Amino acid sequence: MTEPVHLSATEMLGLLRAREISAAELTEAHLRRIDEVNGQVNAVVTLSADRAMDEARRLDDDLARGVWRGPLHGLPIAFKDLTDTVGIRTTYGSRLFAEYVPREDALVVKRARAAGAVTLGKTNTPEFGTGSHTVNEVFGATRNPYDLTRSAGGSSGGAAAALACGMTALADGSDMGGSLRNPASFCNVVGLRPTPGRVPDFSRAAAWFTLGVPGPMARTVADAALLLSVIAGFAPTSPFAIREDGSAFAGPLQPGVEGMRIAWSPDLGGLPVDPRTAEVTARAPAVLTGLGATVEQVELNLSDAEDAFRTYRAWQYAATYGELDDHLVGPNVRWNVEQGRKVTAADLARAERLRTRLFHRMSRFFDTYDLLIAPVSQVPPFPVEDPYVTEIDGTPMPDYLAWMRSAYWISVLHAPAASVPCGFTPEGWPVGVQMIARPFEDLTVLRAAHAFERATRHGERRPPLG
Amino acid sequence: MTEPVHLSATEMLGLLRAREISAAELTEAHLRRIDEVNGQVNAVVTLSADRAMDEARRLDDDLARGVWRGPLHGLPIAFKDLTDTVGIRTTYGSRLFAEYVPREDALVVKRARAAGAVTLGKTNTPEFGTGSHTVNEVFGATRNPYDLTRSAGGSSGGAAAALACGMTALADGSDMGGSLRNPASFCNVVGLRPTPGRVPDFSRAAAWFTLGVPGPMARTVADAALLLSVIAGFAPTSPFAIREDGSAFAGPLQPGVEGMRIAWSPDLGGLPVDPRTAEVTARAPAVLTGLGATVEQVELNLSDAEDAFRTYRAWQYAATYGELDDHLVGPNVRWNVEQGRKVTAADLARAERLRTRLFHRMSRFFDTYDLLIAPVSQVPPFPVEDPYVTEIDGTPMPDYLAWMRSAYWISVLHAPAASVPCGFTPEGWPVGVQMIARPFEDLTVLRAAHAFERATRHGERRPPLG
Repeated sequence: MTEPVHLSATEMLGLLRAREISAAELTEAHLRRIDEVNGQVNAVVTLSADRAMDEARRLDDDLARGVWRGPLHGLPIAFKDLTDTVGIRTTYGSRLFAEYVPREDALVVKRARAAGAVTLGKTNTPEFGTGSHTVNEVFGATRNPYDLTRSAGGSSGGAAAALACGMTALADGSDMGGSLRNPASFCNVVGLRPTPGRVPDFSRAAAWFTLGVPGPMARTVADAALLLSVIAGFAPTSPFAIREDGSAFAGPLQPGVEGMRIAWSPDLGGLPVDPRTAEVTARAPAVLTGLGATVEQVELNLSDAEDAFRTYRAWQYAATYGELDDHLVGPNVRWNVEQGRKVTAADLARAERLRTRLFHRMSRFFDTYDLLIAPVSQVPPFPVEDPYVTEIDGTPMPDYLAWMRSAYWISVLHAPAASVPCGFTPEGWPVGVQMIARPFEDLTVLRAAHAFERATRHGERRPPLG
Repeated sequence: MTEPVHLSATEMLGLLRAREISAAELTEAHLRRIDEVNGQVNAVVTLSADRAMDEARRLDDDLARGVWRGPLHGLPIAFKDLTDTVGIRTTYGSRLFAEYVPREDALVVKRARAAGAVTLGKTNTPEFGTGSHTVNEVFGATRNPYDLTRSAGGSSGGAAAALACGMTALADGSDMGGSLRNPASFCNVVGLRPTPGRVPDFSRAAAWFTLGVPGPMARTVADAALLLSVIAGFAPTSPFAIREDGSAFAGPLQPGVEGMRIAWSPDLGGLPVDPRTAEVTARAPAVLTGLGATVEQVELNLSDAEDAFRTYRAWQYAATYGELDDHLVGPNVRWNVEQGRKVTAADLARAERLRTRLFHRMSRFFDTYDLLIAPVSQVPPFPVEDPYVTEIDGTPMPDYLAWMRSAYWISVLHAPAASVPCGFTPEGWPVGVQMIARPFEDLTVLRAAHAFERATRHGERRPPLG
């Protein structure tokens, strides 16, 4: 039998239900795996091993009494270190919070725990989730399991690397400008940025700010859908909470893409793309055509998203982190806050007009197409020592945000977007394809991603770890 | 028989369905009524009489063939002059748009027409809907049907006055800071400000701006619910569109308030209230107690709403109207734009923190109470010549917004709020009570309002028009 840690969460659930494995055995297997490989990648930065074993044994007792706590009964999960966990240190990747222990669980933690998940610990993130490279002054960098000299992406880089290595069955991520899509792409796992409000967690500083959202990460699309089915659903805690429960994501992800009208954009409207990434993602259209979809290459113009994203992001950074001591935060956060201090109300009005115009234009686009596919990231995993990507296919990148446009332009659309494993470069580096649907059509994304995944069987290739 | 124009829309529908009256007869009766009394109040500012008769005859033909177009089949409706109507002049109360004829119907118009409503014309509004007093340079002032020397309120003052006089069966309104609640209160009719996204129309300049919303107005709560059932429901045109259709509002508004926990705030936390308004609204708690609710007087603190509302409102004015020629807009719009030009990004961040904190505080409040009741306006209808209320019970009001706090503080809560007729001052001026529930609980408001209305039989008292 395959080591249980390399099964999909759905397969683990089958074994748990059939009592072929206990929650305690499964948790132990994951803790062993963490012990074995985490030193190489630095993905799990806080371990709650004793508590996890206690939880697992209690879940086994429940099961013995015929009590099934919920859809994740006995499945190990690790939470991002931006996600508050009662009793478990949550640093946000910041020295300021290096010893911080929250007194309230975040919504996704509450929901996952209520559904029976076992909390293994916390996954690494850059400071306050800033940037698509996971490195911070508290824990250092997370390395890519497929090539330890490379970045795991970010900001949910710890989650992606932990999943790829079999250190956790499920993980949560969050995504303002690609933070769960980019690491999923770099680490050969799945990440879904849901429609804002689908997982109605909220910012305590800015409840109406919709660019940052939590979402599920997993090794397979079905696993991500399983986690989404648990963490999605209405709550009165957000003004934008979507009035639908998560049950739609719990069923079979059928039908597939047969009859879907799919738009393919190799460059999201003129963005430079590394030829290795371009080569891998260019395989996606044929796969979807083979599955019965109609795929058409399109010319997009998402450039309104550039100003809109940067303006709102900067403003939100100044609003949220503007009062922290400048000396105690790192350069990326500081730069964002500085940008935010320069934002004027007129800038915000212009950003609002731009995103509104784009929203309506893309609403018409999605009258014609069910799905848009594109690269997730414009580059494959870059050297772990580099703070960010400074050049793509000959085009210099002026700052640490610029190379993430293929992800953050999509954030502005208010649309669900997944990163799904697409293949590998000749170096063995993973590359994901991005699948985007109309706002609220998260299920369309999952159905297409599931069909694509089954056709490409990406999951066969494991990280070459010692 | 009562003149058909004074029946409720629901009663008219009964006659239409039973073929006791035709849509053409009903439309004709309304056009006669407009001819008779509109000169006194100036509520309907553009009449589309010929088109209305054509529509009505076509609906009668449909009915003769057994085709029932929808829940409003044959009911006359008048749209606010801020609401775009294809082929019918839509001035927004602005000289700049005095001859403007839209080429696309607004969402509420599309939905009402598709449901079989007959468009009579347009109802008056202040310039760009600015202020709770309906007067503009294109059409002049709308007068209160209960006292022609008084204001009908605003900005949906034309709609409220037209309903009160029997000039239309249904009307739409819109509400950023009380614009449909205040005139409903002044004119003895019902207005519901729904949860943002319930009627997912959108601003073309600021789709993420949630303070301004469209909503139904009518002479009875059941009629308002009927119109809401038609204009509510998901559309991909707004990022906040609520994923529920309007059918919940089409059924009987049952149960009533029995067992409801209701909070009563006579002053919304220290606002000055005219003693005549206070005296009428103070009758509401006993009515609700008599219906089986538990009513408890509460101390509220909504003061965070003040800065949050003014900052976002000003910003939105500058964003939307900032490029219009200063010389061509009136003092209220100009003042709002000037305020908006002074808003900084830091102001907006503070406003966002304030409304977020208030949102979460009120979320906990609504864990304890199903409903909050309070005055709609702090004053009864004021002299029609006054540009705004300058003093309330001895407290001077510094600007044209200040007297509307009882309405606009509620707008910040993202909550549904209705104005329901409560009684009359000794002078015979109408006074409404405001009913507010947790965001998304529009049905709770309508149920309570319906029970209250049945117990108070407000509808018996008609405007004393010649």
